[in-house]
Amino acid sequence: MGYTELDQLAINTIRLLAVDATAKANSGHPGAPMGMAPVAHVLFNKFMKFNPKNPEWANRDRFVLSNGHGCMLQYALLHLFGYGISMDDLKAFRQLDSITPGHPEAHDTPGIEVTTGPLGQGFANAVGLAIAQAHSGGVFNKPGYNLFDNYTYCFFGDGCAMEGVASEAASTAGHLKLGNLIAIYDDNHISIDGDTKCAFTEDVTKRFEAYGWHVVWVKDGDNDLEGIEAAIKEAQAVKDKPSMIRLTTTIGFGSKLQGTGGVHGNPLKADDIEGVKKRFGFDPAQSFVVPQQVYDLYHKHAEEGAAQEQEWNQLLQKYAGEYPNEHADLTRRLSGKLPEGWEKSLPVYKPSDPAIASRKLSEAVLEKIHSVIPELLSGSADLTGSNNTRWKNAVDFQPPEYGIGEWSGRYLRYGVREHAMAAIMNGLAAYGTVIPAAGTFLNFVSYAAGAVRLSALSRVRAIHVATHDSIGLGEDGPTHQPIETLAHFRALPNCMVWRPADGNETSAAYYSALTAKHTPSILALTRQNLPQLENSSIEAALKGAYPVFEAADAKVTIISTGSEVSICIDAAKYLQEKHGVVARVVSIPCFEVFDAQDKEYRLKVLPDGIPILSVEVCSTMGWERYSHEQFGLNRFGASGPYKEVYAKFEFTPEGISKRALATIDFYKGVPVRSPINRAFQQIL
Amino acid sequence: MGYTELDQLAINTIRLLAVDATAKANSGHPGAPMGMAPVAHVLFNKFMKFNPKNPEWANRDRFVLSNGHGCMLQYALLHLFGYGISMDDLKAFRQLDSITPGHPEAHDTPGIEVTTGPLGQGFANAVGLAIAQAHSGGVFNKPGYNLFDNYTYCFFGDGCAMEGVASEAASTAGHLKLGNLIAIYDDNHISIDGDTKCAFTEDVTKRFEAYGWHVVWVKDGDNDLEGIEAAIKEAQAVKDKPSMIRLTTTIGFGSKLQGTGGVHGNPLKADDIEGVKKRFGFDPAQSFVVPQQVYDLYHKHAEEGAAQEQEWNQLLQKYAGEYPNEHADLTRRLSGKLPEGWEKSLPVYKPSDPAIASRKLSEAVLEKIHSVIPELLSGSADLTGSNNTRWKNAVDFQPPEYGIGEWSGRYLRYGVREHAMAAIMNGLAAYGTVIPAAGTFLNFVSYAAGAVRLSALSRVRAIHVATHDSIGLGEDGPTHQPIETLAHFRALPNCMVWRPADGNETSAAYYSALTAKHTPSILALTRQNLPQLENSSIEAALKGAYPVFEAADAKVTIISTGSEVSICIDAAKYLQEKHGVVARVVSIPCFEVFDAQDKEYRLKVLPDGIPILSVEVCSTMGWERYSHEQFGLNRFGASGPYKEVYAKFEFTPEGISKRALATIDFYKGVPVRSPINRAFQQIL
Repeated sequence: MGYTELDQLAINTIRLLAVDATAKANSGHPGAPMGMAPVAHVLFNKFMKFNPKNPEWANRDRFVLSNGHGCMLQYALLHLFGYGISMDDLKAFRQLDSITPGHPEAHDTPGIEVTTGPLGQGFANAVGLAIAQAHSGGVFNKPGYNLFDNYTYCFFGDGCAMEGVASEAASTAGHLKLGNLIAIYDDNHISIDGDTKCAFTEDVTKRFEAYGWHVVWVKDGDNDLEGIEAAIKEAQAVKDKPSMIRLTTTIGFGSKLQGTGGVHGNPLKADDIEGVKKRFGFDPAQSFVVPQQVYDLYHKHAEEGAAQEQEWNQLLQKYAGEYPNEHADLTRRLSGKLPEGWEKSLPVYKPSDPAIASRKLSEAVLEKIHSVIPELLSGSADLTGSNNTRWKNAVDFQPPEYGIGEWSGRYLRYGVREHAMAAIMNGLAAYGTVIPAAGTFLNFVSYAAGAVRLSALSRVRAIHVATHDSIGLGEDGPTHQPIETLAHFRALPNCMVWRPADGNETSAAYYSALTAKHTPSILALTRQNLPQLENSSIEAALKGAYPVFEAADAKVTIISTGSEVSICIDAAKYLQEKHGVVARVVSIPCFEVFDAQDKEYRLKVLPDGIPILSVEVCSTMGWERYSHEQFGLNRFGASGPYKEVYAKFEFTPEGISKRALATIDFYKGVPVRSPINRAFQQIL
Repeated sequence: MGYTELDQLAINTIRLLAVDATAKANSGHPGAPMGMAPVAHVLFNKFMKFNPKNPEWANRDRFVLSNGHGCMLQYALLHLFGYGISMDDLKAFRQLDSITPGHPEAHDTPGIEVTTGPLGQGFANAVGLAIAQAHSGGVFNKPGYNLFDNYTYCFFGDGCAMEGVASEAASTAGHLKLGNLIAIYDDNHISIDGDTKCAFTEDVTKRFEAYGWHVVWVKDGDNDLEGIEAAIKEAQAVKDKPSMIRLTTTIGFGSKLQGTGGVHGNPLKADDIEGVKKRFGFDPAQSFVVPQQVYDLYHKHAEEGAAQEQEWNQLLQKYAGEYPNEHADLTRRLSGKLPEGWEKSLPVYKPSDPAIASRKLSEAVLEKIHSVIPELLSGSADLTGSNNTRWKNAVDFQPPEYGIGEWSGRYLRYGVREHAMAAIMNGLAAYGTVIPAAGTFLNFVSYAAGAVRLSALSRVRAIHVATHDSIGLGEDGPTHQPIETLAHFRALPNCMVWRPADGNETSAAYYSALTAKHTPSILALTRQNLPQLENSSIEAALKGAYPVFEAADAKVTIISTGSEVSICIDAAKYLQEKHGVVARVVSIPCFEVFDAQDKEYRLKVLPDGIPILSVEVCSTMGWERYSHEQFGLNRFGASGPYKEVYAKFEFTPEGISKRALATIDFYKGVPVRSPINRAFQQIL
């Protein structure tokens, strides 16, 4: 309360930084920053707890700009508060190799929590951050030690409000009663197509109330700073519900085009800029101006934040004395390191062990490692019994008053919300104290493609347990049988797609996924049983590919993944028995990991001189990189018992042998070069 | 009203057909059919207008089972009413090559309108069907001629209610005031993880009211047939809102596990089946029993439907006399044929024409063809000005009372709802009188992956206008720059991905998309300008690939798409000038179309004897099929002016030339076989 001209000056400074930066770049979105500068000022300066000198402080308040196109708002704030963003960085907005790219990217810009821009994602990330806070509080807080009590704030606009991923996340947050989540809706009635009345006339307030949110409406978000402050206070006071503040604002406030689509996605024109600066009492001849008193005001808040961190660190030290185990666990988690020796818990299999579906092998891994990796949170999009993602005696993450779980619970019931699940996982991973893993059918990871892409781009460790990974799911039929999915995610940079062939390979997949600090993983797992292979091992699988059935003087190499590897081994035996032809078989559970091996190793696995046939019951796309000929399924599958479906499409020892012989024949007398040899290096 | 024992007998017959079929298949979902049999009986027998002898009757009521896993309900109904589904077909439920697959598939099973199972999709399809009805009524209905007045009914469960795609579609339907859409929510409190209270505690009624829906609650959906009938009547009477009937039911009604997750996804056990049959007064020793009076009852309704169609046909004939042009248009549309000579309207370009972005070239196509193809409905997910999807003077499809459009309008404002947009397009296409095309950024077609997959699987003609197709979008940066997207959709069976290089190729892309009656297309279009090529033509592009810069005695073939083709031509000139090396360039705007050409042609385009280098600023995945070496981007892009981004990654004449020389060098002295030659045929 007691707002002065200085506050208004700060707000207008933010607005004009956005105006100047978008004008200089001749690109970007001035409208949202100009409209949301008042709430940003009140929130950041009156409420938010952070230390710009240590953007990684564990109990900082989190801020997510879900309408990431308005990122000049966030860059301006980060600069003004003293984060590592200089005025030159603001001037380099949207320029090559700057730390102020067109949308906020978490890994390169200090103070950016999550990568946003693709609409709806940030909102769901914020739900993930709030879940991680509630869980961390449940695990680490003790009487007198409120180590984790931060708020998560999120700005979102009409675009985010329309996206299904945000709807799913909002329903989840309401169910989970995330009292520390406060989302501020920029109700400006404008989206790219103009007035929202052309497509978006629902009652957003009522919808959020239906989800179980507390809603406050600030009708004059342009001017009513007291009202904004009161609304945030009210939201903070509601502890058993997430809060949504509907903030009615004028997009592009100050521009002569304010309140129209004209200020959404285009820089202001020169005369308009001049007018805005005059209106705000700034010199039209100058750009990128920050009055010293604005720096002073914000730096003062930043120093308070630094002091708060200091206090927290002292509390943590005291905690170390009283709760040494919890303290050690927490500091280890924050370092990003897994517990010493955790990998000894990974199951190892012998060929004589029974055939088991890899989704069950995955369950066995979780059963073994959950107690040694306490930061692992599992979950499923309503397919718990099918994904096998829940260890025995797991406790659900739920508000305790439901009587079906605890805040400290480590199993998340995501509901049938695949997209929000993946986006929430990105938020969980960004919090810093937990590692998320969660399941759905591989086919429905596609529903979450937008979020998985951001896992990869923002370099987070998220583990997608993707079961029922092929026509092997059988009766459910083509609507549920992935064909293109592996190719899709193999084409996604910085995403590891594992398709293990047996127990040891499944353990390797988890080892790789859990130790890949900056890379998400998709584990494609079978519904049907798989035999334990003769020559598999965790070590071999961790090379990405290895000979699983080796033979001297082979005439063909057969390369395969997952459920087809054992069939290929049978094919190799069949070729020997029926045709006297020697074949070797390579298992390649992960393309990306194999690509990272040195060339000598790769050439040993896929040597020159003999042709290579790939076998996988999915699209052949991408297999040409490792093989000369490809046997796959470039059509949709079929509904029926899985063995019959496999037989229909000839993924049998006979069917594979036929194609292996055709491959040998085709390359007879032709010098064969391994596809590992390339003319030039790829840009990575 | 006046329900008798015969009604109950019919309901129990449906329930037991689902019990018997899932038991025989030892697979499937008996719970939903058992719970929803009462509402299905009332709806189909008392309300729905259809003729089983002609499932294609244009004004039939549409039914969509969004909870498609309950498809034995639908198969049983179709059988009982006399559609082309025999008792043997029911007995072959979920067996290979049956017409009763694990989830309903539109193209093979008479009476199935859309392919469902992936949750939330059917609900959104239903919104599309209802839009198509409202539009067709707006276009064709005349005083005294209510040619199009059918209802669209949709069943959906908790799973669909949780999915974002359905939320987006529900918001859209509320905005559009689709009074002829009636969705019945199976409120049974059970999903796969058990009681919905573990993840889904929102107030669904209130949420739908917030979207602008009329909601009725039937509290005893198991027994209250009068209540169900009254609710449907009430819903029919509300003309300015879609209606949602919340129907509280008991999943697996009749089973000893009724009301639990135990009946959701597993057949009933033998003793339970025996108990259910006794409870319903059926002989436990018999299976697949339909009492003759049930057939009689349903066949009587079917005959009424046949008579209604007869009346409608007479009305249509009268209409032909009074409105011959409209009649001719309608009958042509229903035949699936485009107007004679429409393709003459496609723009043709000369090399001297100015450089134009392919998104603008696409706009030019729409501008030319919209008047000759009146069934074309365009639209955008709130990116109208960026996607260039709206022809001048287009009228929006809106409820007239908004004053911003008409039911007969042909431009849809989908809002920022990519997934619902694509799913709605599937519904639009399924109606039979319109062809949907709609835009978003290529990167955000990924948000819609679940629906695009179903476009392909269910073989509908939907056109995705996917602009800003690469790093060429520039400043928006990596969050918006697709890398994996083309590979993803190229790997999807029955989906054509076009990436035209200039105006003629853009016209070809539209020709192909519009004439592909059973295949969806994605048109990947640039933000940036592209020159008109010397040797392009619609005819050549319609081969999928063709030499766009031919040269005798070339040492290398460079193959490329879209915005990179003209850079490759410059590279070929550069190679000649700077290195005296002859290169030829092939443009391959569509892989799928090229694959369909005869081998002789394909070998002419990609001949033996010289190595092939591919160039595309996206993932190289899949390019190995057409080239020996690949130049692409297997990493995320960068934010900056697009020419600088291209230069950073060396997609310049120099950068391409360097790699062409490396390719030539690498293949020196090696016999080179075109990748068109394969050892064996793929399974298609």
